[in-house]
Formats: sequence, C-alpha cells, structure tokens
Amino acid sequence: MPEPLRAPGPDLLAALEAALGPGGVVPPEPRHLEEPRGRFHGTAAAVLRPADTEAVATAVRLCAAARVGIVPYGGGTGLVCGQVRPEGPPALILSLERLDRIRALDTTDNVIVAEAGVVLADLQSAATAADRLFPLSLAAEGTARIGGNLATNAGGVNVLRYGNARDLALGLEAVLADGSVHHGLRRLRKDNTGYDLRHLLIGSEGTLGVITAASLRLFPRPAETATAWVETADPATALALLQHLQDRLGETLSGFEIMARRGLDFLAEKLPQVARPIADPGPWSVLVEAGAGHGAGLGPRFEAALADAIETGLAGETLIAQNTAQRDAFWRVRESIPEANRLIGAVTSHDLSLPLSQIPAFIARADATLAAIDPGLRANAFGHLGDGNLHYNTFPAAGRNRAEHDHQRARITECLHDLVDSFGGSVSAEHGIGRLKTGDLVRYGDPAKLAAMRAIKAALDPHGILNPGAVLG
Amino acid sequence: MPEPLRAPGPDLLAALEAALGPGGVVPPEPRHLEEPRGRFHGTAAAVLRPADTEAVATAVRLCAAARVGIVPYGGGTGLVCGQVRPEGPPALILSLERLDRIRALDTTDNVIVAEAGVVLADLQSAATAADRLFPLSLAAEGTARIGGNLATNAGGVNVLRYGNARDLALGLEAVLADGSVHHGLRRLRKDNTGYDLRHLLIGSEGTLGVITAASLRLFPRPAETATAWVETADPATALALLQHLQDRLGETLSGFEIMARRGLDFLAEKLPQVARPIADPGPWSVLVEAGAGHGAGLGPRFEAALADAIETGLAGETLIAQNTAQRDAFWRVRESIPEANRLIGAVTSHDLSLPLSQIPAFIARADATLAAIDPGLRANAFGHLGDGNLHYNTFPAAGRNRAEHDHQRARITECLHDLVDSFGGSVSAEHGIGRLKTGDLVRYGDPAKLAAMRAIKAALDPHGILNPGAVLG
Repeated sequence: MPEPLRAPGPDLLAALEAALGPGGVVPPEPRHLEEPRGRFHGTAAAVLRPADTEAVATAVRLCAAARVGIVPYGGGTGLVCGQVRPEGPPALILSLERLDRIRALDTTDNVIVAEAGVVLADLQSAATAADRLFPLSLAAEGTARIGGNLATNAGGVNVLRYGNARDLALGLEAVLADGSVHHGLRRLRKDNTGYDLRHLLIGSEGTLGVITAASLRLFPRPAETATAWVETADPATALALLQHLQDRLGETLSGFEIMARRGLDFLAEKLPQVARPIADPGPWSVLVEAGAGHGAGLGPRFEAALADAIETGLAGETLIAQNTAQRDAFWRVRESIPEANRLIGAVTSHDLSLPLSQIPAFIARADATLAAIDPGLRANAFGHLGDGNLHYNTFPAAGRNRAEHDHQRARITECLHDLVDSFGGSVSAEHGIGRLKTGDLVRYGDPAKLAAMRAIKAALDPHGILNPGAVLG
Repeated sequence: MPEPLRAPGPDLLAALEAALGPGGVVPPEPRHLEEPRGRFHGTAAAVLRPADTEAVATAVRLCAAARVGIVPYGGGTGLVCGQVRPEGPPALILSLERLDRIRALDTTDNVIVAEAGVVLADLQSAATAADRLFPLSLAAEGTARIGGNLATNAGGVNVLRYGNARDLALGLEAVLADGSVHHGLRRLRKDNTGYDLRHLLIGSEGTLGVITAASLRLFPRPAETATAWVETADPATALALLQHLQDRLGETLSGFEIMARRGLDFLAEKLPQVARPIADPGPWSVLVEAGAGHGAGLGPRFEAALADAIETGLAGETLIAQNTAQRDAFWRVRESIPEANRLIGAVTSHDLSLPLSQIPAFIARADATLAAIDPGLRANAFGHLGDGNLHYNTFPAAGRNRAEHDHQRARITECLHDLVDSFGGSVSAEHGIGRLKTGDLVRYGDPAKLAAMRAIKAALDPHGILNPGAVLG
C-alpha cells in the first residue's frame, strides 16, 4: 500500500505557480467540483492549467514528489464521476483545456494529431474542413474534449461502423505517473513493437497516465447518407431488422438507435418543441443511418432494403429522410431523449451492454424485475442497439417524485446489474467506472482481471497520485 | 530482479505428468526447437500438452512454484523466434494444440468462441460453414493457431478492411503467471469496465499470460467479390491509386497488395509453376480486392473505378478476375512470393510499417542505402500497402550466395531500421519482437514506454517464467 496522499501545501503550490506561469494555477470553478448528474460534489485545492505537454510533465513530477493527488479534467462531461474527487485530502485538478492545438492533419495518412484539450466538435470540424470524417460523435461533443473521450474510451452513435474511441487512436502522447513523457504519436496502422500501452491508457480514466495528445484516424466523408425513422413491434423485431439491414447494406450501416415509446412521450411532455417524427408513436422506434462513397447508389439500396423489411413485417411505419433538414430532425429527437430524461428526473440510470442476442430477453426480464420492486416505476430503454448498448433508466411513477423512490434506488441498481451480469453483459458499456461504479467492478469483475489491474496500477503509479479513488476505488 | 530460472527437475516433471495425464508431457520434436527461418535453435526439457484450460493453469502454477520458464507454443509459424528459447536453462514448451475446440458460434451475436489451439484455417472454415466470415488471413493459416495469432497480434491480407488480430477479439480467456485464470470471454462490442487486459495480452507474445481461448468477431460473408491485377508505375502512383479506390469504393476495399517486379522474377525463377498474370511484368504490380453485400452492384463500380484509374494514368495494364479460378490464381502469385524469397535465400528480411505518405520516399532511400553498402545487393519490396506495411527483403547479387553477404547483414539491418525510424515507422509491423528484435525495441522504443513495459512485466510475472527472453530480452 502506498503512503496516504497529502493535501497540497504552500510550497507545492508556489512551485507549481512558478512552473506553470500566469494563469497556470487558478481556484476551482463550480464546474470543476460537480458532475453532470449532480450526484457527487468534489473538493479541490486548485486547478492546474498547464499550457503544453512539458508543463503537464512538470506538474505531475512535482505532485508525485509531494504525494499529492491529481484529478485529470477534460470537458467535465463524464457521467460516472471520474472527474471530481469527493473524498480524501483535497486534490489538484489538472485541466487539459490549454492543450487545445491540432498539431497536424494529413489526408494521405488519414491522420489528425490533436492535443487532449481539443473539444470533440472542433476536432470533427477540422476533419470536415479537410474533407474527411472523424466519426466519434456523442451528445456532449460541444463540451467534451478528446483527451477525456480517450481516457474513458467514449462510444456514441457511430460505433457500429467505426468503433469506440480506442479504435480511432493510432498513437498517444501521455505523461506517466513519474512525470516521464510517453512519446507514442505514431501514425501507423500496424505496429507490433511491444505491449500496447496505448490501449492500456485508453479507458484507464486517468489512473495510469495523463493523455496529452493523440494521433487519430480519419475516414472518407460519406458522399451519400441515407436516414430513416422506422417503427418496429418489439426489441426482437428490431434485432431482426438490424440483421436484415446488415445483410443488405453491409458496413455502410453506421447507426441503429432504438427508442422505447416512453422516451418519446417524455420528450413530448418536457421538450414539446422537438417534434416527434410520428405524432402517435408505436411501442418501439429505430433511427437507421447508412453512408457510402461516390456512386454507391446507396439511396435506392436503402429504400429497397426497407421496403422488403416492411413487406416481411420487420418494419412498420417508415419515414425516409428526404433532405438534410429531415435527417437532422430525426437525430434531434434521438439526441434530446437524455435531456428529456433529465427533466423528468431519473431514479436510476444504467449504461448496459449485452450480447445482441440477449437484448429482447433482457428487456423483458428487466421490466418484470422493476415491476416486482414497485409497479409504479417507469422504465425508459433506448440506445445503440447495433452495439448491444442499452441505456435503461428508471423514473418515478407519474405524479410522484424521485425522492419517494430514494429507498429503492440501491435495490433497483443491484437487481438490474445482477440481471445484466447473468446475461453475460456489462454494467458499463461506454461511460466507464469512475467513482460511481467501483463497487460494481468488484462485484461483477473477473477476480484475475481485478488482481492484474491492481498490480498494473501499483507498478505504473506506485504512489497512487493519478485520479485517486477512480476505477479501483 | 527475479531470481534466476531453473531447469525443470524430476519432481516437477513427475508432478506435471501426474497433472496432465497420458500424452501430457512428451519429448520435444524438431519443430519445437526451430523457427521457420532457421536462424535460431532452441532447447527444451519437454513439451507440455495440457488438454484444457484448467490443465494449463495447473501447469503454469507448478512451473511458477519451481521457477521454471515456459515457452507458449501455438503453430510454430512465428517469424521472430518468439516460440523457441535458445538460451538459459532448458524451458518447458507449453503447446496449446490440444485446446482445439470451437466452443460456440452465434450468428446473431456474430461471435465465435475458439480455443487457442484451433488452426486458423479451421476457424475460417467454421465461420464459412455458418455463412459468416472470419477475416484474419495469412500465408501460414494452415498451420498457425489462433492463440498464437492473438499473442502476436497477427496481421495478414485483410487488415485494410477488418483490422489486425486484436481488432477481431472481443474477449479472452487466459492463464496468468500465477496460474490464475482470467475469464474474459465476453461477447460485447462495448465494455468499459476497467483496464483493457485483453489488449495488453494481445501482442505480448506470451510474456504476460497464456491465451487459452478467445471470443472473436464474425462478419457477413461478402456476397460479391471483385479482384484485379493492376500494373502501376511506381510506389507514389500506387499510393495515389489506393486513395482513388478508397474514395470510390470506400470500406468495400479489403486488399491492396503491392509487389515489385523483382519478387515476380524470383517467382518465375524458383516457382515457374505459379504463372504470373502478366508474362513480362512492369516495375510494380498491385493486387486489389473489394467485397460487398447482396445487391451492392460492386462489379460495375469496381470496373468503373479502375477504368478511370487507367484513364488518369494511375493504373497501367489491368486484369480483372473473371471468375474464382482467376481470383485464386492472382492470390497464389501474391502468396507465393515469400516462398520464392526463401528459395532465393534472403540476406535480411524486414517487416516494416510506415506512414502511408512516406512509403515512396522510404523505398527510394532504402534502395540507395542498400546500393551504398553493396551495389550488387538486390531488394525485393512487397506487402500490404493499404496498411503501410512493407516487407522489404534483401538478397545476394545474382550468382553470389548468402554467405558472401554475411559480414554485411548487421549493417544492412541497422541502416534500414534507422531509416524506418527516421520516417516515423516501425521495425515490426506485424511479426512482433520475439527474440529477434529485442535489441531494436531498446534502440528505437520510446524510453517511457519501455520502462512501463518492464514495470508491467514485473508486476504480472514477478518470477519471469512466461516466455523468458522474449520481447523484453
């Protein structure tokens, strides 16, 4: 066990101020001490704002010598409390926001090299300006920063075709716990020279190193895009529709988002300005999108595949977007569901993944589990069905408020997570562990993997200064 | 530093015989003591042949307690001497060949769960029988086993579209150095629960754990395949052709293999039964392949894209395969080049990767470097241009033999590897480090990464029993 961490003393703060220069050490703002769902509130002695990688390395080295904890901070949009530290001696928040340069973009290599603090939407825009696609896309993209996206291995709406954040990273630059800098910004598609430190850092949520920059894959921008809003009878039919479309459209299929009617009703109640594509929606709706290169004739193939799905009963009422405005309107509905959920006020939120084949049975069992706890509870299931990733959230009975369900929260979570585990699923598909799910990691994690994780953490961060309390508790 | 390893004593061998049962401990055969290029010859006290994962775990536990080294052994096809141990006290070879079951195959989840000893070609066949594609494909697939493919993160001819071996693995089962079993055979596309032990084990060449089984991704079988043999002026033009085809064919492009005329001449000299598609080939030839789903109309798009390439000068003489036999004949040429190289007898062989944009300049500089060492030396460049992966091998002057170049071998390798490094490339694209390139890892590796690798090795294998001497030397 490492010795306990200390609060930063005046000597350390003075040394950091000297090293980081003007604006390099500032008091925390409210955003640095809370997380989006408002469940956790942190403490912090100060926010460090290094301007470049060398300054990050210096800050880490000083903190390591002083045995002071560091909480790396990107855009602050994480949903599992990886970015605030509620317990222990006040840590220092290490904000990457000043590392916001795009260092290189090459359309032959199809690579963009971006620093950790680049906002995801800005990264997408830089790619677009070069007639390329950077496919990572998620609701928080206007605030989230790429370093945090990588540290948490973010998912989002394009995983079906392009993979998670880790699949987009060719190389990393990172500051390790002793302040050394890993220079790994390679632009290679193949590189079998030793252990894959890149994949170890990605998804480690700042507990093994601080990502300062990444070389990332770019893709051709799809010249043709086809989007549809499709009603379907139930999750099993939605799954059959997914398979049908994969058979017919292959890798062009980039999005397959499922939404229960409940989420669309929440939307109508709380965000009526976001018009639902179908006024009286059926029990399940799917947003389907495909993209292809010049001359692929995607539109007719997409329409034919959906026409066949309607004929065979896999698809019900189906709207094909006729223009960009309609496409954007469909996506706005999908992307507004988390906000409508927030306005209703969830009792519990779950970011689950399951083997695709198990999803229909899981939803049925989850609904029954919930009803057994409290028949009034309302579930809303939505998410990236193509990836087996379901956001299954629970809400108070109509007319009741969250507080009335406070006593049930722990039980709901435990029952649903036990159920996911029994189906071979994961209790954190794309959000990570943070500080919210450290107990789940112990409860459901493979013991040999946990032991290996602890050994790796002790080996790479022997003083335990990097994001203390996150992931491994 | 761990205490030195020991040779296995009679007590250990007796305990292993008792634990592994009949046929579980056998004398080494010649294949266990040599590697395909014949550069290294190993020693081994015995070959362990456990029948299942529990037996692997028992064997590792016994060896760990006795401080005896283990060399995991799959199909023995690795090219960097990861599978034989020439130095130190005789180790035990741990053959996975009896773990040869396909445990599950699910066409909804698109997952196959295979044990480490399944031969790659058998895995491909099992997928095909279920109307799915397992895309990992390489020359040694009739002998190589999937556990070894994963341990070395194998590449092959379909990386452009489907990625390396690591990109195909959803989960692993592995025995760690203390004999504990990591049960990680998940079938999930998204799972952000802790450090990615899977990606750490993949590519670690048996030095951090012994992979015993994997859950692997399956894909739809392309209903349409289009293949062409295309002559092109030089590497820069080949690169422009690749970009043109990616723009036009998008992700359907699955193969883009480049071959210098020299390799085709070696083929004509040593394997005349493998007919070259064009009798008098130009300086550079490319094998292009694309695949797509039902109704994609791939053939006409493929032909149109190539016709435009001919018109703009990117493509010279172009043959489009008219049937499966022609397609197979094209591929046979590509896949026979390594064998022709062997029959000529290489002075040095290099498995390099480079940023795509740097390949033309690299080849020019490499040729000049070689000529400066010895104007008679002949280079043969071929490989997976779409992945930036070049096999650049050197051969004796015509009429001379390898031995006459013995004194130049180290210098050639060092000069070429220095050159690759100066271009931001890798000296091991897909073959790994093994025991052949441990010096390169130190010379070209990032010091912070190397330190992290050593710390991880010490943490996960404190007695250093797993594949001693491989990767980290």
